[in-house]
Amino acid sequence: MYGWRAKIALIIPENNVVMEHEFNKLAPEGVSIHSTRAYSNLKGIEKHREREEQLDDIAKKLIALKPTIVVYAIDSGSFYKGAGHDLNMAKKISDVVQVPAITTATSAVNAFKKLGISKISVVTPFEDEINIRLKQFMEGYGIQVLNTDRIRSYGSYGIPDINLGNVYQFVKEVTYQDAEGIYIGCTNLRTIQIIEYLEKDLAKTVISASQATIWNALKTADINDPISGYGKLLTFQ
Amino acid sequence: MYGWRAKIALIIPENNVVMEHEFNKLAPEGVSIHSTRAYSNLKGIEKHREREEQLDDIAKKLIALKPTIVVYAIDSGSFYKGAGHDLNMAKKISDVVQVPAITTATSAVNAFKKLGISKISVVTPFEDEINIRLKQFMEGYGIQVLNTDRIRSYGSYGIPDINLGNVYQFVKEVTYQDAEGIYIGCTNLRTIQIIEYLEKDLAKTVISASQATIWNALKTADINDPISGYGKLLTFQ
Amino acid sequence: MYGWRAKIALIIPENNVVMEHEFNKLAPEGVSIHSTRAYSNLKGIEKHREREEQLDDIAKKLIALKPTIVVYAIDSGSFYKGAGHDLNMAKKISDVVQVPAITTATSAVNAFKKLGISKISVVTPFEDEINIRLKQFMEGYGIQVLNTDRIRSYGSYGIPDINLGNVYQFVKEVTYQDAEGIYIGCTNLRTIQIIEYLEKDLAKTVISASQATIWNALKTADINDPISGYGKLLTFQ
Amino acid sequence: MYGWRAKIALIIPENNVVMEHEFNKLAPEGVSIHSTRAYSNLKGIEKHREREEQLDDIAKKLIALKPTIVVYAIDSGSFYKGAGHDLNMAKKISDVVQVPAITTATSAVNAFKKLGISKISVVTPFEDEINIRLKQFMEGYGIQVLNTDRIRSYGSYGIPDINLGNVYQFVKEVTYQDAEGIYIGCTNLRTIQIIEYLEKDLAKTVISASQATIWNALKTADINDPISGYGKLLTFQ
Amino acid sequence: MYGWRAKIALIIPENNVVMEHEFNKLAPEGVSIHSTRAYSNLKGIEKHREREEQLDDIAKKLIALKPTIVVYAIDSGSFYKGAGHDLNMAKKISDVVQVPAITTATSAVNAFKKLGISKISVVTPFEDEINIRLKQFMEGYGIQVLNTDRIRSYGSYGIPDINLGNVYQFVKEVTYQDAEGIYIGCTNLRTIQIIEYLEKDLAKTVISASQATIWNALKTADINDPISGYGKLLTFQ
Amino acid sequence: MYGWRAKIALIIPENNVVMEHEFNKLAPEGVSIHSTRAYSNLKGIEKHREREEQLDDIAKKLIALKPTIVVYAIDSGSFYKGAGHDLNMAKKISDVVQVPAITTATSAVNAFKKLGISKISVVTPFEDEINIRLKQFMEGYGIQVLNTDRIRSYGSYGIPDINLGNVYQFVKEVTYQDAEGIYIGCTNLRTIQIIEYLEKDLAKTVISASQATIWNALKTADINDPISGYGKLLTFQ
Amino acid sequence: MYGWRAKIALIIPENNVVMEHEFNKLAPEGVSIHSTRAYSNLKGIEKHREREEQLDDIAKKLIALKPTIVVYAIDSGSFYKGAGHDLNMAKKISDVVQVPAITTATSAVNAFKKLGISKISVVTPFEDEINIRLKQFMEGYGIQVLNTDRIRSYGSYGIPDINLGNVYQFVKEVTYQDAEGIYIGCTNLRTIQIIEYLEKDLAKTVISASQATIWNALKTADINDPISGYGKLLTFQ
Amino acid sequence: MYGWRAKIALIIPENNVVMEHEFNKLAPEGVSIHSTRAYSNLKGIEKHREREEQLDDIAKKLIALKPTIVVYAIDSGSFYKGAGHDLNMAKKISDVVQVPAITTATSAVNAFKKLGISKISVVTPFEDEINIRLKQFMEGYGIQVLNTDRIRSYGSYGIPDINLGNVYQFVKEVTYQDAEGIYIGCTNLRTIQIIEYLEKDLAKTVISASQATIWNALKTADINDPISGYGKLLTFQ
Repeated sequence: MYGWRAKIALIIPENNVVMEHEFNKLAPEGVSIHSTRAYSNLKGIEKHREREEQLDDIAKKLIALKPTIVVYAIDSGSFYKGAGHDLNMAKKISDVVQVPAITTATSAVNAFKKLGISKISVVTPFEDEINIRLKQFMEGYGIQVLNTDRIRSYGSYGIPDINLGNVYQFVKEVTYQDAEGIYIGCTNLRTIQIIEYLEKDLAKTVISASQATIWNALKTADINDPISGYGKLLTFQ
Repeated sequence: MYGWRAKIALIIPENNVVMEHEFNKLAPEGVSIHSTRAYSNLKGIEKHREREEQLDDIAKKLIALKPTIVVYAIDSGSFYKGAGHDLNMAKKISDVVQVPAITTATSAVNAFKKLGISKISVVTPFEDEINIRLKQFMEGYGIQVLNTDRIRSYGSYGIPDINLGNVYQFVKEVTYQDAEGIYIGCTNLRTIQIIEYLEKDLAKTVISASQATIWNALKTADINDPISGYGKLLTFQ
Repeated sequence: MYGWRAKIALIIPENNVVMEHEFNKLAPEGVSIHSTRAYSNLKGIEKHREREEQLDDIAKKLIALKPTIVVYAIDSGSFYKGAGHDLNMAKKISDVVQVPAITTATSAVNAFKKLGISKISVVTPFEDEINIRLKQFMEGYGIQVLNTDRIRSYGSYGIPDINLGNVYQFVKEVTYQDAEGIYIGCTNLRTIQIIEYLEKDLAKTVISASQATIWNALKTADINDPISGYGKLLTFQ
Repeated sequence: MYGWRAKIALIIPENNVVMEHEFNKLAPEGVSIHSTRAYSNLKGIEKHREREEQLDDIAKKLIALKPTIVVYAIDSGSFYKGAGHDLNMAKKISDVVQVPAITTATSAVNAFKKLGISKISVVTPFEDEINIRLKQFMEGYGIQVLNTDRIRSYGSYGIPDINLGNVYQFVKEVTYQDAEGIYIGCTNLRTIQIIEYLEKDLAKTVISASQATIWNALKTADINDPISGYGKLLTFQ
Repeated sequence: MYGWRAKIALIIPENNVVMEHEFNKLAPEGVSIHSTRAYSNLKGIEKHREREEQLDDIAKKLIALKPTIVVYAIDSGSFYKGAGHDLNMAKKISDVVQVPAITTATSAVNAFKKLGISKISVVTPFEDEINIRLKQFMEGYGIQVLNTDRIRSYGSYGIPDINLGNVYQFVKEVTYQDAEGIYIGCTNLRTIQIIEYLEKDLAKTVISASQATIWNALKTADINDPISGYGKLLTFQ
Repeated sequence: MYGWRAKIALIIPENNVVMEHEFNKLAPEGVSIHSTRAYSNLKGIEKHREREEQLDDIAKKLIALKPTIVVYAIDSGSFYKGAGHDLNMAKKISDVVQVPAITTATSAVNAFKKLGISKISVVTPFEDEINIRLKQFMEGYGIQVLNTDRIRSYGSYGIPDINLGNVYQFVKEVTYQDAEGIYIGCTNLRTIQIIEYLEKDLAKTVISASQATIWNALKTADINDPISGYGKLLTFQ
Repeated sequence: MYGWRAKIALIIPENNVVMEHEFNKLAPEGVSIHSTRAYSNLKGIEKHREREEQLDDIAKKLIALKPTIVVYAIDSGSFYKGAGHDLNMAKKISDVVQVPAITTATSAVNAFKKLGISKISVVTPFEDEINIRLKQFMEGYGIQVLNTDRIRSYGSYGIPDINLGNVYQFVKEVTYQDAEGIYIGCTNLRTIQIIEYLEKDLAKTVISASQATIWNALKTADINDPISGYGKLLTFQ
Repeated sequence: MYGWRAKIALIIPENNVVMEHEFNKLAPEGVSIHSTRAYSNLKGIEKHREREEQLDDIAKKLIALKPTIVVYAIDSGSFYKGAGHDLNMAKKISDVVQVPAITTATSAVNAFKKLGISKISVVTPFEDEINIRLKQFMEGYGIQVLNTDRIRSYGSYGIPDINLGNVYQFVKEVTYQDAEGIYIGCTNLRTIQIIEYLEKDLAKTVISASQATIWNALKTADINDPISGYGKLLTFQ
């Protein structure tokens, strides 16, 4: 029986190639991951609005899967309307599927709170408008954002093509001295393999969108295995 | 970069918990799996009709993912209208996404042809009507079906809960002496861990729905790693 | 020399397929397991009565084996007559073979006492009459039983066929919030592979019939190796 | 599910400490071993007669276990009445339990036939009368026995206490130059760890009672895994 | 003693970060790698001319190292003047240090000859003028070049930053159907980890600048260990 | 990307065969080593003077490499002019390349200070004049040198050919009882494999030239992985 | 270089097959073992007297080996004349070879002192006269001997043929409840593989002749590696 | 039981530190090595004469050990009197101990014959007089010696201190092009770790004194395990 401890239903954007791959890689024994996708071909905030409108419909279609929990793993899509809206989205899903639901943005906030971090630097591949909303969201939950910096992709390459080494170097350059922690946003950006190196080399706590999502999903499903090699958050039960 | 050799888009039914889990487990280095779901709450043939109506829409939503290939991994959904219809479905998807597409049913047929098998016993969890159509489909492609037997789930347990050991014993009991091979249908039934044991202990070739789908998907994406431990098909390049 | 540290004689019911397999799997270096069977084709309490009548005869036949200890590994057979009768049965065997003897039911009680647990939930595959007697037995030794719930097998499948995942989910559902520990009864039910997961995910101590029997047998034979991976009891020397 | 490929019921003498231990050690994935014991406190031939009288009774008690096959793993007990009687014993068991049955003595004969060996030296811990009957049995099946030599145990030590190194040296000393193979009798004598060394160092095929029993049991249950490290017989499918 | 089988002196360009790293990684037991650098801050062909003028001087400084061989591991720097000039450069070095010397360009040619390949596709990060000279060089040695395609780096990233996955995809796209082999030029481009995947997935032989250099250096130093995992060339002794 | 955490540029003498080999061996994930050489064919102090004159020129040529730091890994070359001159040399390099720079001699001093050692025995392969200057240098930084002893190479063998076992025995013989630590000088002498044995067997801290250089280089580049097996210094973060 | 940390010269009796084998097995990296033999064909005490007369001669012949230390590894031969004589024997050897020397009997005493044990049970294969002298020797050094029991070999088997399992069982049976430790004498009796099991199962410290000899030899040669798996003495630095 | 397959008695010179160490390292399961020493403080040929005079006496002292075979592992000591004398020495030992005996020199000859080699280069640390006798010995058995070259040790270092890397380089330099094989003489010179590298890099068969001795000893004792990693001779059964 796959997923004999927990079956986790994952709602991801139409173009995401990172989130389900990393969750499958890190899933403990007896936990299975089951994806479906929210779709939009609009840009910026409009994209999130369109995806959000599909919430009820997507949730309804997940009932037959009998998941243990549902995860809305769209980072900007869960913070773009400010603190509190993330919880509303989770509640909407939960009401339909009748199991607990969480979002990526809530997971990031909870992760920093769990580790006692309240002043952070932020790196994302998002455009400025989204980064401003991320700052507002975090600060709405009492986490001070010292700076937000955008890492870019070039040529025909997309966000998931960005080199892990380039993310490491970029984070190292833009992090503020007095930040207690670092948030690397976007569930479509690869991060999990460099979190431990950044934590060691900068001596700061590092939380990424996909890592926080995995941590919160497992905790919500009562799966309590520490996972080593991907940052202190996942070893912290 | 995940999926640096190939990104495989998987279309599965709303309630499937086996296919993406097994494909993630067997995927070679550099191959990533990306699922989306076709939805129906109807029964029997009607369920497949409803899912098939969504084909264009689902395919369109996969474009942004830039997959290397698309896989319609719904077993009965790809054979229920008979030989040839499986190819039409693949073509429809391919026309929209502009990359190669395959189906589970085609994969099973190709697997038997590749291994030179033309007389088989069949085990599935399907109701009789579907098993009759599976026989017609296989025979439409020149593969003689000696018998079809249905393995059942009990109580509140579903198809993915069926014990691997029970599948092994059931297959052993119902297989015909003069069958050259065995087909275990349904991408929502666990099979891959027992294929090698069945092949050794029965001295016959064993093909299952998810195994054949994985094999054909990799081959279509030009991924030529032999995979050992899951039946002779996957070691056969 | 097999069993150079200890040779353990195991008395099990005629239909048991779990106990000797698990004991062989967990036995430390230098410990060998030697089974014989008590037989009955009656039902319920009568079955245990018939098996018990064979005690002297079975014990006598074990003398030539020169075992270090003898284990009466029939769970309900050792508690069905209430607290104290388990010790009588052990004494009877011991008097014949002239080495120490223990029973499964005593082992479960000792395990909870060793770990300081006095309030438990109980899961077994037993019929109600037996579960009532198990509650009486436990409470006769001062261990409060909050609830007893029966896990069932279906169709032609027997108790040893029950999926480990189904046992895990069933235990998770029926355990009382205020239970300090959980007892999973019956030496013919598979449990040892899920004990650690249940302990982690429920944050409660879990004792099963076969695990407690193995622990008590080794301790009685002065074999003091901690065994990891099968619950905290076995790592506790 | 333990024994999901095969559940093997083992009938052994009351004092045997080797057979079930070695079979558990060598049993492939999905094969479980379930012992029961035939009892006698007589000596020599009388002992075997008394055990044989229990055959029907023991067999009846194995029905509830639903074994895949039954094994009468008493070496001298299966050859003492000459060629053919071994098959009768197996048939008697099979008639009761309604599954295939085999004996150790038949297994040894079949092993030599399988490997094309017809001239052997024999080492056992048996008294002379038994060794004479073993020679008659083997020759009744067309296998010439050049010599039979008895290995002894000393002081308070029994047959299972004999050092593997002493067995190796004894076999090396007494084997005839022109023997094609060697038989080491008695399922209560340890042998499996030295078979490969004897085969290498003497350049002759070596068959032992427990090894041949394991090989024939697996083959009869349609379990076809080669097992390496215990002599060429077990790698020979 | 490091380098007890061979000490290999490596001449690389001032900005190279790939060649010595890969050679250290692949060097067999007893082989040590010792780098020095040729310097130029000019562009294109002029850069190679300036570096070449330093040949005598660099070679003289390597004498004290007592290397087993010297390697001029600058790809375009060894082919830019056409077939034969590569051998002159090697001879010049050899005359000074009095040990054998080789160049990267010669190594690539020898690799194709060794494997019997005479029609190739070429991928490099070089500007067009250099690619034209590479084609002339190869054809001067009888190896037909079907096409040369340039892989680019973007933004502030340099050639060693190019993703291995992007090199794999680029090679897959531009290789000609009727090419027997592929050359991936430039010792400052990472390639060794994808060579085996390209060989499997394209079913063509793949040679890269650093791989060919390593192969030829070891062979020239009489080091004959096959190295597995980096393309068929290195397993070919 | 090689060197994605740090690219370390190494300036070594023309004849050094140890330093870059050991640094490559110990470099943590994501750290790459890039060597270039300072050249002299003079003797003794003159040799260091000649090499030092090339500092600016060598440093300028390293700019294109974009190293994270630069290491002047010439032991006597960095201490021969006394305490403070080592820092001047580092500053000169740093001014040209515009990244941090360090020297071997500074690294040794910092290592002893880090571990709180201020009284040492010294073993080097240097001639007496150099050893006197090493003592002056160390004492200029407040580290008392109890004795300096010279280990010799013989026949045609050079310093890198000296047996590790002979270094171990020599150090054991000449170390003063009241030394708190031991310094083994010269980046061209093999030491790293015996440091832990010397520390265990003499119960004193052991620092060698190459080990201290590696430690200081990683620390300066913000690489904070402990490295085990090469002395307590490298496990000390 | 073998023995680069220490070369240990071992003087053993003509018939010893255990001591050098076990020392070779446990010797840490860089320690080599070099045996020679003292010869006698007399019995009992006379045997030791004859061997002792050869001391000077054997010692003289060891000079050319340049050992780090010399070990007189004859158990009864080093205690038979009482406390103090063991030290005289060591001194005699040391005076000739001019390196430290030790004996087995001294090692056993030192081991018990090191671990703070002063009341012991003793098991040896020695005849009574020797056991009485062992008791006198131990008590001469302040270690109370509660009992001495003799383990026997049978038939044509010698002391080195005794089964490890039989030694374990014998020690378990004869050890006194109030003994703090156990001594298993004779460097020709196998013990090292069962020391940890005895220590765990009896909860007492166990010292054997060969183990104590190995421990003391390494300590005397300044080799300070803890060795795990052979009793607490060897992990105690 | 150590040496349960074979106990090998080794006669080595008083100063040998290599032979018993290497034999212990390579001895297969169940083979134990037991050394004793022949003594001389004379020089050259006189040394061998003096050691040879002790043959009878040493052999007599080995009887109590009950060895499977005896090995006279003194290289020059077994060839210095020419072809045939080696066999006489072995016979003398064998007559006393009453088990087979062999010498190093015979082993080398047999090794070359076994591998079909009849023209060799020779490297030893012996003085010229001994090398001349080695050549005569080999040619007495029909093996042509093209050249003999002496490898030296320096300073206070002895033959066993010579670096393996220096032996490798020396052999590479002096071997004749048309030699089919190479003999590296002296059981006190380390060689076994470089034999495979020399065989690969020179493409010639390499036999060393200790390797040939080990091979012949095992073969004579009927131990037929191939041993990999130490030259083709030991893998050749």
